Amino acid sequence: MPSLSAGKPILCKAAVAREPGKPLLIEEISVATPKCNEVRIKILCTSLCHSDLTLWSLKEPPGYFPRILGHEAVGIVESVGEGVDEFSEGDFVMPVFLANCGDCSDCKSNRSNLCSTLPFKLSAMMPRDESSRFTDSKGDLLYHSLHVSSFTEYTVVDVAHVTKVDPRIPPNRACLLSCGVSTGVGAAWKTAQVDEGSTVAIFGLGAIGLAVAEGARICGATKIIGVDVNPAKFETGKKFGVTDYINPMNDTTKSVSEIINEMTDGGADYCFECVGMSSLVEEAFACCRKGWGKTVVLGVDKPNSKLNISSHDVLHNGKILTGSLFGGLKAKSDISTLVKWYLDKKLRLDEFVTHEMKFEDINKAFELLLEGKCLRCVLWFDKDDKLLESNGNAEP
Amino acid sequence: MPSLSAGKPILCKAAVAREPGKPLLIEEISVATPKCNEVRIKILCTSLCHSDLTLWSLKEPPGYFPRILGHEAVGIVESVGEGVDEFSEGDFVMPVFLANCGDCSDCKSNRSNLCSTLPFKLSAMMPRDESSRFTDSKGDLLYHSLHVSSFTEYTVVDVAHVTKVDPRIPPNRACLLSCGVSTGVGAAWKTAQVDEGSTVAIFGLGAIGLAVAEGARICGATKIIGVDVNPAKFETGKKFGVTDYINPMNDTTKSVSEIINEMTDGGADYCFECVGMSSLVEEAFACCRKGWGKTVVLGVDKPNSKLNISSHDVLHNGKILTGSLFGGLKAKSDISTLVKWYLDKKLRLDEFVTHEMKFEDINKAFELLLEGKCLRCVLWFDKDDKLLESNGNAEP
Repeated sequence: MPSLSAGKPILCKAAVAREPGKPLLIEEISVATPKCNEVRIKILCTSLCHSDLTLWSLKEPPGYFPRILGHEAVGIVESVGEGVDEFSEGDFVMPVFLANCGDCSDCKSNRSNLCSTLPFKLSAMMPRDESSRFTDSKGDLLYHSLHVSSFTEYTVVDVAHVTKVDPRIPPNRACLLSCGVSTGVGAAWKTAQVDEGSTVAIFGLGAIGLAVAEGARICGATKIIGVDVNPAKFETGKKFGVTDYINPMNDTTKSVSEIINEMTDGGADYCFECVGMSSLVEEAFACCRKGWGKTVVLGVDKPNSKLNISSHDVLHNGKILTGSLFGGLKAKSDISTLVKWYLDKKLRLDEFVTHEMKFEDINKAFELLLEGKCLRCVLWFDKDDKLLESNGNAEP
Repeated sequence: MPSLSAGKPILCKAAVAREPGKPLLIEEISVATPKCNEVRIKILCTSLCHSDLTLWSLKEPPGYFPRILGHEAVGIVESVGEGVDEFSEGDFVMPVFLANCGDCSDCKSNRSNLCSTLPFKLSAMMPRDESSRFTDSKGDLLYHSLHVSSFTEYTVVDVAHVTKVDPRIPPNRACLLSCGVSTGVGAAWKTAQVDEGSTVAIFGLGAIGLAVAEGARICGATKIIGVDVNPAKFETGKKFGVTDYINPMNDTTKSVSEIINEMTDGGADYCFECVGMSSLVEEAFACCRKGWGKTVVLGVDKPNSKLNISSHDVLHNGKILTGSLFGGLKAKSDISTLVKWYLDKKLRLDEFVTHEMKFEDINKAFELLLEGKCLRCVLWFDKDDKLLESNGNAEP
């Protein structure tokens, strides 16, 4: 039986980004009915990712205003568009910024997760018809974000951007798998294919870098070196399998790559750059093992930036440079593996959630992330305050 | 029974490079007895590789003078040093510039061909004791080259740099597998692991680029695009499996990467840069397929040069950049496979030999290679002139 709200626009609360860098405004917006190939989702909880901060701060495209940001979330299907068979009302689902149509040459290949039907772009509209499903109280258009837009009670998402999730995973854990944590774990598991007994170096111990550590730990890496200028990150890192720590500020006589080359007797098997600085990519590449060392770029640098790497290390040392979006994962097949790993207590997610709060406090969450005071802050739409308090908001 | 010459220095003819860029001098030199872990080889024939020209032209290290250049060759073991069990007098062997000790972590790994016991360096001495086995008629030291030095009737090579060869392959075909052709074929077969039905783009159709085409053809690539400014190269390329040709001079409105992206409906699965120009690496990387495209760097750029590649193509398009020495091949195990392929008529070698001549005519061979008039010129030490003529010296 379709939900009572199906077939009609829904009025609900949302956090609207009206100006770059300015606090979001909690407003009532209208969310249109899902069209063909679309579902409307009631968001249960959403978490903040650094990419939200980036899009929020940009005055020029890919910054667009007014806009509904947010792309890490989990929710319940409220209604489905015409001809949608894959989902039904009531399904526990996760929207994902990277499409997975299932039919194109990329989706059918086990080598790529970059759907060709709906290729990744930093768009502000629905992916197929380039229109919006959101309007504000004046009837003016609101932009989408990363094909998800989760800073709203209800959102409309293309079916290629949605995957069903085992409902045994709590929503405030599931939402983390919608972007950041999956990207890091996937980068170790799928992109680098870290193997048992290997050594790993991670540049930058934010949520993505820590998720790389967690992924590398699961893959059986025995030495996981974290590089960060903030010494507090090492204590956090230990929870996710980081075994060694380098603070580049502590040793000014040697470069980080020199230190890692010494520590690992010739280089780490896998290096991950999780900051987004070309100079760090060079350092990472310089300390990955000759013969088979792989450097994986995860950090987002400025648009049109170039990576400078040693021609000698490519040609004479046979090293590999690569990168991936969403950790090389396919939304419809790989997320369920990560959920299973969590349920089997193989993958740690609890430790990433340093803060939880009501959706209305979203601007506080932005501040915490901006100040580097949280790994992941989960925002709840309908949870009562008591429960939030009992979850505890430990500092990272 | 040891050869009559064993245990004593051998006086023989050699081509000595006494000054950078100046004609080699045919001189009588003395070749010392092989030490522990060494063999003395009577060279049957040797071919010229571009790296010989490079080392010959350099005024500063890795240019050294006076020197015995040459590193593509095949010969017969004349005598062995103390404790050498792997080789005996009379063995048909190939010296190889890249070591393969068989015992180190790299030699034991199937992921690396970069021996750690005797790591690759552009040295001018024997690899273990950094001394020379060559002296000229005045008793002065002559430098080695790439641990091979084949422009001499006799040479001394470390056992890690020698592999036995099936004597059914003619010497003037075997010598090609000592460097250039193996590098190209190996790059397609081992480094890139070109797969059946794939598309390949090759930047630069010299001997290495053509060998990449041959390797890609053997691996089952169905579209092999050659890029070269010399249109004559396309006719040559056809012999080695090149199916399509792009002359960058013909279309100035589009970049080569744009043309290849169009021809392949989104990029080639594998791109090979065989020239040694950073800008071509960028072009190659720009036209390899999103999701899985691999760019393999084979061209040698200036020392300390950097490769500039698009951060976006690494991160958002998941492309892979890599390179290899000697095509990722291990001398002691993979050369025998290539020899078998030749004997089975799977691998073409005859077509690479555009010229053959007496060793004494080595300066003519240098000129031909410098003028771009030959792919491979084979120099014979003991073959009579009649036979040479009957081989025919077709232009490439």
